[in-house]
Amino acid sequence: MEQRRRAVGTSVNRVDAYDKVTGRARYTDDLCGKEAYIARVVHSTVANGRVLSVDKSEAEKLPGVIRVVSCFDVPKNYYPTAGHPWSVEEAHQDVSDRLMLTDRVRFYGDDVAAVVAEDEVTAARAAGMVKIEYEEYPFVLDVREAMEDGAPQLHEDYPGNVLNHTSIRSGSYEEAIKEPGLIKVEGWYDTPSVQHCHIENFICYAYEADHKINVTSSTQIPHIVRRVVGQALGIPWGRVRVIKPYIGGGFGNKQDVLYEPLCAFLSTLCGGHLVKLDVSREEAFNCTRVRHAIRSHIISWVRPDGTFAARKLTAYSNQGAYASHGHGVVAKGMGAFPQLYPCPNVEADSYTVFTNRPVAGAMRGYGIPQAMFAVESHTDDVAKAVGMSPLEFRRKNLMPQGYVDAFSKNENYFDTFNQCMAKAAAYMDYDRKIKEYDGQDGNIRRGIGLAVFWYNTAVWPISLETSSCRMVLNQDGSIQVQVGETEIGQGADTAFSQMAADALGIPFEDVHIISSQDTDVTPFGTGAYASRQTYTAGFSIEQTAGLLKGRILSYAQELTRMPASQLELVDGVIVRKSDARPMMTLGELASEALYSLSHSEHLTAESTYQIKSNAYSFGCTMAEVEVDIEACKISLMDIVNVHDCGKLINPALALAQVHGGMSMGIGYGLSEMEKFDAATGRTLNGNLLDYKLSTAMDHPHLEGQFVKNYEPTSAFGTKALGEPPVCSVAPAIRNAVLQATGIGIDQIPLNPHVLFEEFKKGGLLDV
Amino acid sequence: MEQRRRAVGTSVNRVDAYDKVTGRARYTDDLCGKEAYIARVVHSTVANGRVLSVDKSEAEKLPGVIRVVSCFDVPKNYYPTAGHPWSVEEAHQDVSDRLMLTDRVRFYGDDVAAVVAEDEVTAARAAGMVKIEYEEYPFVLDVREAMEDGAPQLHEDYPGNVLNHTSIRSGSYEEAIKEPGLIKVEGWYDTPSVQHCHIENFICYAYEADHKINVTSSTQIPHIVRRVVGQALGIPWGRVRVIKPYIGGGFGNKQDVLYEPLCAFLSTLCGGHLVKLDVSREEAFNCTRVRHAIRSHIISWVRPDGTFAARKLTAYSNQGAYASHGHGVVAKGMGAFPQLYPCPNVEADSYTVFTNRPVAGAMRGYGIPQAMFAVESHTDDVAKAVGMSPLEFRRKNLMPQGYVDAFSKNENYFDTFNQCMAKAAAYMDYDRKIKEYDGQDGNIRRGIGLAVFWYNTAVWPISLETSSCRMVLNQDGSIQVQVGETEIGQGADTAFSQMAADALGIPFEDVHIISSQDTDVTPFGTGAYASRQTYTAGFSIEQTAGLLKGRILSYAQELTRMPASQLELVDGVIVRKSDARPMMTLGELASEALYSLSHSEHLTAESTYQIKSNAYSFGCTMAEVEVDIEACKISLMDIVNVHDCGKLINPALALAQVHGGMSMGIGYGLSEMEKFDAATGRTLNGNLLDYKLSTAMDHPHLEGQFVKNYEPTSAFGTKALGEPPVCSVAPAIRNAVLQATGIGIDQIPLNPHVLFEEFKKGGLLDV
Repeated sequence: MEQRRRAVGTSVNRVDAYDKVTGRARYTDDLCGKEAYIARVVHSTVANGRVLSVDKSEAEKLPGVIRVVSCFDVPKNYYPTAGHPWSVEEAHQDVSDRLMLTDRVRFYGDDVAAVVAEDEVTAARAAGMVKIEYEEYPFVLDVREAMEDGAPQLHEDYPGNVLNHTSIRSGSYEEAIKEPGLIKVEGWYDTPSVQHCHIENFICYAYEADHKINVTSSTQIPHIVRRVVGQALGIPWGRVRVIKPYIGGGFGNKQDVLYEPLCAFLSTLCGGHLVKLDVSREEAFNCTRVRHAIRSHIISWVRPDGTFAARKLTAYSNQGAYASHGHGVVAKGMGAFPQLYPCPNVEADSYTVFTNRPVAGAMRGYGIPQAMFAVESHTDDVAKAVGMSPLEFRRKNLMPQGYVDAFSKNENYFDTFNQCMAKAAAYMDYDRKIKEYDGQDGNIRRGIGLAVFWYNTAVWPISLETSSCRMVLNQDGSIQVQVGETEIGQGADTAFSQMAADALGIPFEDVHIISSQDTDVTPFGTGAYASRQTYTAGFSIEQTAGLLKGRILSYAQELTRMPASQLELVDGVIVRKSDARPMMTLGELASEALYSLSHSEHLTAESTYQIKSNAYSFGCTMAEVEVDIEACKISLMDIVNVHDCGKLINPALALAQVHGGMSMGIGYGLSEMEKFDAATGRTLNGNLLDYKLSTAMDHPHLEGQFVKNYEPTSAFGTKALGEPPVCSVAPAIRNAVLQATGIGIDQIPLNPHVLFEEFKKGGLLDV
Repeated sequence: MEQRRRAVGTSVNRVDAYDKVTGRARYTDDLCGKEAYIARVVHSTVANGRVLSVDKSEAEKLPGVIRVVSCFDVPKNYYPTAGHPWSVEEAHQDVSDRLMLTDRVRFYGDDVAAVVAEDEVTAARAAGMVKIEYEEYPFVLDVREAMEDGAPQLHEDYPGNVLNHTSIRSGSYEEAIKEPGLIKVEGWYDTPSVQHCHIENFICYAYEADHKINVTSSTQIPHIVRRVVGQALGIPWGRVRVIKPYIGGGFGNKQDVLYEPLCAFLSTLCGGHLVKLDVSREEAFNCTRVRHAIRSHIISWVRPDGTFAARKLTAYSNQGAYASHGHGVVAKGMGAFPQLYPCPNVEADSYTVFTNRPVAGAMRGYGIPQAMFAVESHTDDVAKAVGMSPLEFRRKNLMPQGYVDAFSKNENYFDTFNQCMAKAAAYMDYDRKIKEYDGQDGNIRRGIGLAVFWYNTAVWPISLETSSCRMVLNQDGSIQVQVGETEIGQGADTAFSQMAADALGIPFEDVHIISSQDTDVTPFGTGAYASRQTYTAGFSIEQTAGLLKGRILSYAQELTRMPASQLELVDGVIVRKSDARPMMTLGELASEALYSLSHSEHLTAESTYQIKSNAYSFGCTMAEVEVDIEACKISLMDIVNVHDCGKLINPALALAQVHGGMSMGIGYGLSEMEKFDAATGRTLNGNLLDYKLSTAMDHPHLEGQFVKNYEPTSAFGTKALGEPPVCSVAPAIRNAVLQATGIGIDQIPLNPHVLFEEFKKGGLLDV
C-alpha cells in the first residue's frame, strides 16, 4: 500500500537549480587549484602494433616540462575499468586488461605516453615532441571480420577476438520450424558506435596528502574509482580517496574508470604535487568510451495468425580494443529478446568481439537501444509479413501481465505495455493515421511508427545491489543526507531529498543533501548506472530515516514523558498520536539533545540496505515522420514516449529525463555515428562539428507521458527511468519511415547517405 | 586496570608530520580559490565613542572595489563569541554583546566598516579611503580605574563596568585572623595582556552554495563557529557549514568566533561570491583576543609553624571592550585558590571588568597562569616570612592525596605534587643549590625557584562535555576516524589515531584520521580548548571502536562459523580466542562484507559519549636564574617542568607540548606584554618586532619530565597536558630571582625596566 507522502510525488524545484543556473555550482575544474601541473596523454597513431621506443628527450628539454612518462615507466598492474561492483570471487570480476600506458597499442588513440607540465600550452607542445617508434600490425575494425580466421588478434587469451559468447536455448528451434505454414521473416540490423557527448568532458586531478592519493574526478562511480586506482597503483584501497563533485553529465561514459589511475600515478611521480588531467572533446570521442556497435541477425517463424513458432537471434557486439564493460552490454539485449515477445522455441547467441576501434563501454540503455532497434524493427517487419498492424501485432505478442522471469524473478505486475501503447496511440491519433498514411505515393510521404522497449531496474541478481545512507541531525531540525549514489545532472539529489523528507517526516527544505561523494566519509555505494539510484537509494534512505526517527522519538520520550510509541514526527514537529497535539519541534529537540547537561547525544543514523529485487520498467515510443524521398530527408513531425516507471518521485524531473532520453534517441536514429578511416583506423569525426549530435534544433515537441503503476517491490513505488527513454526512439522512427515509404531500413542512423542507398534499392529513387 | 595497548604509549611519528614538513599540508589560504574577493576591516581610531557618519563614497569609486559596508549596514543580531558549548537555557549562555560592525566603538581598533575588493592592494587602499566621523568619549584602560565612580561606562547593562563578580567563602576569615601570633603576608600581583602569537594569523573565507553559507576558517571550534554564524546572520544553523582545515596554532585565540560572521555576511552581500578575510599580524594583536591582564591581591595569615589560618584573594580581570570568554577566566583562577593550599578560612572575590582595551579571551591556561603567578609568588613570600624553604613549605601545605573537590568531584588520587617536586628537585640538585645560593652578594647572583600549578581537564561540571566519533571501515581493513575534536598543531590527530588503533585492535598505520572538520558531516564536538581533547575524545573513540568491533565480529561469525564471543580483533586479524588461531584478516572480512551477494554491509559505527568526569592535572616548574643586577638582566640558566598527566599517549608529543608551554611561560615571565598609549588607547607594540615574543634564542635547554599516575577517570588513563606547561613557569622564574636577590617582584614580565625600578627600590642599585 502506498504510504502518505508530502514531498514525494510533487515537482519541487531541483535542489541544485539555483546554484547551477547562477554558476555557483562548482565542478572539477572549478575546484582544482591553480597551481596544478597539467598532464596530457600522448596517443597512438597506429591502430595496432607495438611501441619499439619512446624518445622523451626533446620534450623533457622544453622549459616548463615537469615530467615525461612512457609506457615503459608504468607499473605492470593490469586492472579492469568497468564500473561494476567488485566481486571477491575472481570468476565474477571484470577483465583486467588495461595498463595506465601501454606499449602494445590496440587502437588509433591508445595511451602510450604522458607529459606533465606547468601549463596547458607547454603540456600540449611537449606531447607533440614525444617521438614514438612503432612496429605496425594489420588491424581490423569490423566485428565479423575480426572473428574470421587469420584476422589480427588483439589479446592473447581471446582466440578469434571473442571476449565472450553466451547463449540462450529454450524449446527446440530446429523442431519448431518444421511446423507447416510458417512464415519466415529474417533481417540483419546494424547500430553504430556513438558517443555520450556529455557537456563536461572527463576531467580529474590528483595529489598526495594524508598518506593517501587524493583524486577528484568527474565520475559516476567514486567508490569504484577508489578501488581501481588502488588496483592500478598497487596500493591498499584505504590509501586512495576519491571525491566526486558536481559533474556535467556522464551517460555511462563516466561509469568507467578512465584516466584517474594515470593522473594519480603522475602525481606520485611529481612528489605528490597537484596534477590535472583534462580530456579534450576529441579525446572524449576517441579515447574514452563509445556505445557498442552491434550487428544483430534475427529470424522469426510466424504463423499466419500472428503468433511466433520459433525465433533466433545472433548478435555481434563490437567491443573495440579493450574489455571495459564487455559482454554484459550485448548480453543484456539478448536477455530481453525472449522476454519481450515470449515464444516457446528460442535460440539466441551473443558475441562480444575485440576490434581495433575505440573502446566500447556503458552508455545509457546498456545494450537495449541496440537490441530494441533490431527487435522492434524486426517486429514491424513481421507484422507486415502477416498483415497485421504494428499495434495489433504487439498487443497479441508482447509479454503478458503476470509474466515472471525465471532468473530475475521480475514480474510484469500490470498490463503496462497495453496501457502505454494506448496512451501513445491516443496522443498520436494512431488509429486514424495508420490508415490515412497507408499506401501513399508521391515524393512527400508521412508515416507513423511504434516501438516498445524492455528494461529493468538495477543489476540484481546479476550483480550486487547495495545502498548505504547516513543522516545527521542539525540543531535547527534539518538534516544532512549522505548516500553513495551520485548526482550526475539527472536530479538524483532532489529525488533523494524528497524521499528523505517524507521518510523522516520533515519539510523538504530541511533536507540538505550532500551532493559530493567523498569515499573517506560517504557511505559505500556503487554509483550512477543501471537506472538504479532512485530505486536502490530509496531503500537505504527509508531504512535510515526510520532509524533516525527511532532515535529522535526515543529522545522525545525523555523530554515529553510520552512513550516513543505514542509519538510521531510530522512536518518537523513531534506530535502525540492520540490527539495530534504538537509536543515540540524537531529543532527544539535537536538542540536539547546536543546541549543537554543530563543527556547529550548527536542524533545521527547510518545503515546499509542490500537490495534483492529488481523491477521491470516498460514503455513505448510513437513517432510520426514526413519523408522527402528525393531529398533523402526525414522530418520528425511528432513523437511521444510513454513510460511506466511506477510512482513518479518528481514529475517535472521525470519528464526532463524522458526529454533527454528522447533527444538522445533521435540522434541515434537520425544522425549520430562515429566514422573510422579504413586506411588508418583513425576516428574521422571525433568532434562536435563533424559528429552530428542531435540538438533541440533537430527536435519537434517532445511529448512525455506516464503510466503510474505503483511498483510493489520498491520502497517508494518507483523504478527505472534514467535509461529507458532512449531505448525505443530509433526503431519507432525507422518504423514510421517504413510505414511512409514501405522501405524497412535496418541500419541507423537514417541519414541521407543511407536513405539514398535504401530508396534507390527499394525503387523509390530512379538514379 | 590498564588495558593492553600497542600504539598508545609509544612515540609514533605524528600522522601529519610528512605533510607538514614537506609543505603538502594545506591551510585555509592554500585552499581558498584565487578568484576570491578580499575583505578588509576598517578599525576605529578612537578608544571610546560613537560613529556619527561613515563616508564610503571615495572608497566605492576606487576601481576594483566590490562593496563597502559600514556599521549602519549590518543586521542588529547581537551574538556571543566565546567558544563555549551552547546552552539552551538563557541564563547559561555567553553574553551577546557583539555586532559584526559597530557604531558604538569601545576600543582603538574596534570594527566599524569593511571593504571588499578584487585584490589585496585595492582592499587596503579602499579601507584607507573610508571616512569615519566619531563623537569621542573619555576612555579607561586600567581595571581598577574602570570600577571607580565616574569612570567611562562601556556597556549599559554593566554599572561600574563590572561584567561579573563572584565569591568564595569558607569558614570565617574575619574570626580566623583574630588568632594570636599570626603572621600576615600581603601582596599585589600584576600580570599583563599578552597575545597568543600563533604562527598563522586568523583567516577565513566564505561563499554561498547548496542553500548554505559555507565558511572555511582557521578555528579551534568549527561546530561553535557554525552556531554563532547562524546567530549573527539570523539564519537557521543548518544553513551554515563550517570547515576547519589544518591550522597554524590557536592557543585559545581561535577558541573565539572572530571574523567568520562578518566574512559570511560580506559574501552574502556579494551574491555569494567567495570572500576571504585574512587578518594581519597587527590586527591579530589589536583586534582578535589577548590574555586577560589580572591584578590580584592576596593576604595570608600564617602560623609560625607554616600552616595557614586564613586567606583572602581579590582578583580584578581586565576584560577589554567585549565580554568574549568573560568571567570564566578569572573565576577559574579563583577556583584554584582554595584547592591548591587548602585552608579552613577563605574569602575570595573575582571581578571581570570592561575597559577600553582589546578584548581578552581564552588563552592557554585560561586564568591559571595569572592565578599561579599571584599565588605561587605569594607562596614564596609566605615561606620566606615563616623561614621555611619554598619546597618544605609546599610539601606541608599543598593539596594532600585523597583531597576531593566538593563541586567538581575531582579527586587527588596520588601524591602527585610531592612526586613532581621530587623529580624536579632531583634534576635541579635543588637541595644543594637552595643552600649554596642563599645569602649571595655581588653583582652577579644565582637563584633557584619553584612553583607548582593546579589544573583540571575539560569543563565538566561547569559546562557540557560531549564527544562524538564515527569510524568507517575500508576494504583493506583500514578505517577512517572522524571526531569533532580538532587538530590545531598540537598533535591531537596522532593521539586519536593511536587510541583508535588500540581500541579497535588494528595497526596504527591502518587508522586514517580525518583531520579536517566539516560541520555537515563531522560528528558533533565542541573543539580544542580546556586541555580536553585527548581525555574527552578518548571516550568516544573507545566506545565507537567497541561498536565497530562488535559489528565486525558479528560479521566474522557469518564467515567463520565461530561465535562472535569467541573472536577477537588483534593487529587487524580476526583471531579465535581459544587457540589464538588467525581466522581471516580484517581486510578480507571488510571486502567480503561490502561485496557479498548474500549479505552486503558497509561496516561503520558512530556514537556520542557524554563525559561526566574531570581530572586534576598537576605539576611544577623549577627554574635557575643568573641575575646581573647592574644590567637589570635575568639569564635563565636551566628550567624543568614536571607533569603528572596520567598515561602518556605519545611520550614524544607530550614532551613537545611541555616544551611549547614552557617557551610561552618564559616569554610571559620575562619579556612579553602589550603596551597601550595612554593618550589614545592604541596598542603601541602590536607587531612581532616591538612585542618581545620569547623564542628559542631566549631559552636554555627545556627539560620536561613526567610522573605517570594512570588516571582512573579516563578511558586511556590520560588527562590534561595542553595548557598546564605554561602555568607555573613565570612564578618559578620570579621565585628564583627572589632567591638570588631577595627582591620579590610582583609583576611580569621581569624585563629590565621593571628590574631597574625594583632593584632600585630594594636598595640593590644605587642610582
